[in-house]
Amino acid sequence: MQLTFSSDEIAAIVQPRATRGATTVTIRGISALRTARPGDLSFLGMAKYKADVAATQASLVLIPPDYAGEPKANQVLMVVDQPSAALARLCSRIELASRVPAVAGVHPSAVVAAGASVAASASIGPLCVVEAGARIGERAALQAGVYVGRDVVIGDDSELFAGVRVYAGSEIGRRVRIHANAVVGSDGFGYEFVKGHYEKVPQIGKTLIEDDVEIGAGTTIDRARFGSTVVGEGTKIDNLVQIGHNVVIGRHCILCSQAGISGSTVLEDYVVLAGQVGVVGHITIGRGVKAGGQTGIAADVAPGSSINGTPSLPLMLDQRISILKQRLPELFHRVDALEKQIRGLSGGGTSGTA
Amino acid sequence: MQLTFSSDEIAAIVQPRATRGATTVTIRGISALRTARPGDLSFLGMAKYKADVAATQASLVLIPPDYAGEPKANQVLMVVDQPSAALARLCSRIELASRVPAVAGVHPSAVVAAGASVAASASIGPLCVVEAGARIGERAALQAGVYVGRDVVIGDDSELFAGVRVYAGSEIGRRVRIHANAVVGSDGFGYEFVKGHYEKVPQIGKTLIEDDVEIGAGTTIDRARFGSTVVGEGTKIDNLVQIGHNVVIGRHCILCSQAGISGSTVLEDYVVLAGQVGVVGHITIGRGVKAGGQTGIAADVAPGSSINGTPSLPLMLDQRISILKQRLPELFHRVDALEKQIRGLSGGGTSGTA
Amino acid sequence: MQLTFSSDEIAAIVQPRATRGATTVTIRGISALRTARPGDLSFLGMAKYKADVAATQASLVLIPPDYAGEPKANQVLMVVDQPSAALARLCSRIELASRVPAVAGVHPSAVVAAGASVAASASIGPLCVVEAGARIGERAALQAGVYVGRDVVIGDDSELFAGVRVYAGSEIGRRVRIHANAVVGSDGFGYEFVKGHYEKVPQIGKTLIEDDVEIGAGTTIDRARFGSTVVGEGTKIDNLVQIGHNVVIGRHCILCSQAGISGSTVLEDYVVLAGQVGVVGHITIGRGVKAGGQTGIAADVAPGSSINGTPSLPLMLDQRISILKQRLPELFHRVDALEKQIRGLSGGGTSGTA
Repeated sequence: MQLTFSSDEIAAIVQPRATRGATTVTIRGISALRTARPGDLSFLGMAKYKADVAATQASLVLIPPDYAGEPKANQVLMVVDQPSAALARLCSRIELASRVPAVAGVHPSAVVAAGASVAASASIGPLCVVEAGARIGERAALQAGVYVGRDVVIGDDSELFAGVRVYAGSEIGRRVRIHANAVVGSDGFGYEFVKGHYEKVPQIGKTLIEDDVEIGAGTTIDRARFGSTVVGEGTKIDNLVQIGHNVVIGRHCILCSQAGISGSTVLEDYVVLAGQVGVVGHITIGRGVKAGGQTGIAADVAPGSSINGTPSLPLMLDQRISILKQRLPELFHRVDALEKQIRGLSGGGTSGTA
Repeated sequence: MQLTFSSDEIAAIVQPRATRGATTVTIRGISALRTARPGDLSFLGMAKYKADVAATQASLVLIPPDYAGEPKANQVLMVVDQPSAALARLCSRIELASRVPAVAGVHPSAVVAAGASVAASASIGPLCVVEAGARIGERAALQAGVYVGRDVVIGDDSELFAGVRVYAGSEIGRRVRIHANAVVGSDGFGYEFVKGHYEKVPQIGKTLIEDDVEIGAGTTIDRARFGSTVVGEGTKIDNLVQIGHNVVIGRHCILCSQAGISGSTVLEDYVVLAGQVGVVGHITIGRGVKAGGQTGIAADVAPGSSINGTPSLPLMLDQRISILKQRLPELFHRVDALEKQIRGLSGGGTSGTA
Repeated sequence: MQLTFSSDEIAAIVQPRATRGATTVTIRGISALRTARPGDLSFLGMAKYKADVAATQASLVLIPPDYAGEPKANQVLMVVDQPSAALARLCSRIELASRVPAVAGVHPSAVVAAGASVAASASIGPLCVVEAGARIGERAALQAGVYVGRDVVIGDDSELFAGVRVYAGSEIGRRVRIHANAVVGSDGFGYEFVKGHYEKVPQIGKTLIEDDVEIGAGTTIDRARFGSTVVGEGTKIDNLVQIGHNVVIGRHCILCSQAGISGSTVLEDYVVLAGQVGVVGHITIGRGVKAGGQTGIAADVAPGSSINGTPSLPLMLDQRISILKQRLPELFHRVDALEKQIRGLSGGGTSGTA
């Protein structure tokens, strides 16, 4: 991404409450405080990086109202309510300027079946395959090498990056973004154990991705055994996440990378799962639950809970146990000592000299 | 999947032992008890959902012999030995009816090398690549965008979904299903540390997938450093599983999503690894071992064991420790109290007033 | 891989210090000690397999200087300083002999945009897509079905296997190997929570992969929110690893399969993360840190540390705690007994019979 801004142009975008210092340098990059060099814009987004502001070489720094420091020579500090949000506005501007819009129409190398329906404003990139019965909505974009199975529906304004695979019968809403090599609608993992081997349980359901969902690279979402696997409106899913068959995910959830959800489990709205969380099947995770990284969830979780650990516990209890666990060697010593003292005391009752 | 059944037609398929009630409604969907609506078939597959039968709106419910409840108006309960298996039979019927068979032949957009051998009954879908020396068996189907490297063998009746990548020299048996974007035969992860950097250890072995194996979406299976990485007959592998080089997996194992097995480890027959299990290299997991979700296995496991936790312990011990771990705060308090009492007793022995 | 060697030819490659016994058998395979058959070469690479040498049927075994056993009839033992390294040299020879070099030029089925630059010695395989502004270096090879976005740079001698996806603007160094279906440069996972839903934070940075990096199958590396996500020179990454936005990985690190690193975290040089390790965002892992399998790292780690467990602790402490944890049932019993004895002693002070 190319960027070239004067500090005045940046002020026009981020609308600072106040400005300290000034710079004549043209801003050509964005960088973290520690790695910034002259010509870079930086920002104080988390309190833990506060000490880095005084040392940064950035020519322009977005700071929160409670940061009291003064700028260096040829450096400008702009006070904004939320530096992170202000930076996001700036980045949006840059992204918009550099975006290359997808070209409407079907690339000549794509293979679109006769019975598929592609909106005139949609873009089917090179080497995509669209099977019979599929419907691609207005302004939807399939980047390259995307596979869209039979009878799949892709809603308006959705974007599928290179190598996405959508199995037959899946329904994808509007403004959905699916990143490279993600898979939607693969067979659920179900078998019956019969006479020493596993027989496949047919998976005849489908997968329903609602509006405004984002799905990360390499993520896999299985279709239902029957009925639907559902990802609710506005939910954001990171890379390499696994979602089992018949899982129902509510609206506005966050599933971080490498989390895995087993079959038929329900996540209510606003659930947040950190990275590598594992969830067993057939349970319900209540609205607004937050689970820390690597948490293993094996039972229903009440709405609003913060949990951590394997098996998962209330966050505060888990943290306390983590600290006490480190004191186990000490505890064993203390119990050893107590036993010795008790032996002394008991013995002392019969003979004062032991 | 479209479905339209009368309750008599369903009875003909599931062969109920007994029937309670009746319905005139046409069955057009299958759903869990809680989400079912009139016109849906549902089933009591796990005891924990028993209370949901009385409340369900399903028009037809498959119930086990020990369920005693009565149907509502215009609802039929069909008693079957195993509702889950009966449903599977019904789903098989539906799947069969709606299956679109792969078309034999090579799609004109596919790139098949001169020296490859493709059976006349095989189907090579759009934009597949088949390299020289590869052999594709009878009725085998490559869906779309599949890559088959040099000298790969794909057995009869195997099915590779969109975007599967098979490295040179891999051998895949009969009736194997490999889901979208899975990778078979990638380089094993082996390096020697020489003078401050890592030098690659060549990986000249191959990968052997035996008959009736299923491999999930996005799963990766490395080829051997030498000899073969093996997945035994009838083993089923879920999505996003990692199998390292020279791993040998027995027959009829179950590897759930996001499990990972390090190099040269052996799984004997009938092993079950739940989701996110991690296994170190160079160990043997005995026949029939069952490991719970997120278990970390760092040493050989005796046949028939059930294990859990990181590092893994016998299941019962791990569960007991998990419960006791939650009582650590209490235990520390009790030891504090004991120490205080002992001080009192010891002190009391020499001076009654302390 | 085909191989046919006499024992003299193998001696010429591995240059043994000494040889015991002799064989007339032609070596046609390489196998582990236990599975080797006559005609196979095997090796003693780890002390734990020592007992297997006497029992092996291999015709030729590479052994370390401290192995004292004698060969069987028609078997030769070759003493080498490091059997594993000697085997690697042999495998390199075999690999070189069997390697099929990529053919320079653009396959007619590939879609290369007018504004892309492809070196004459580079190989663009079937059904690859190279977008405008991309530059492909000398002798670089894109196997098949690879996607290279706008303005991507691929350095000399790099190799991208089937189905690799490189998002616009990424820079990839020289001699980099990227395995099948890996994704480089996908959107970082960043959102602001605004009025009940998540708004996407634009991700306008890029991804920089330095020279001599290897990236495993299905691995995903997000591009930066701003600035660059960096993978340092010589670092080796296994399959299904996740690297978040703005992560900076140093030189010569090892990241084993299914490890995940959250946004803005720094790994200094020579860090080793075992399989399924999880790392939170915004921390620094010092030079040479080694983390065991499934470790959960939630805070900065000092250089040179060996750590384990979740939350991570120094390795020795974590191992000690793991052992003590198994003795928790015993500890609870001991505290129960102490309390009983104390009650006896306290009660005993007032009444001798209780």
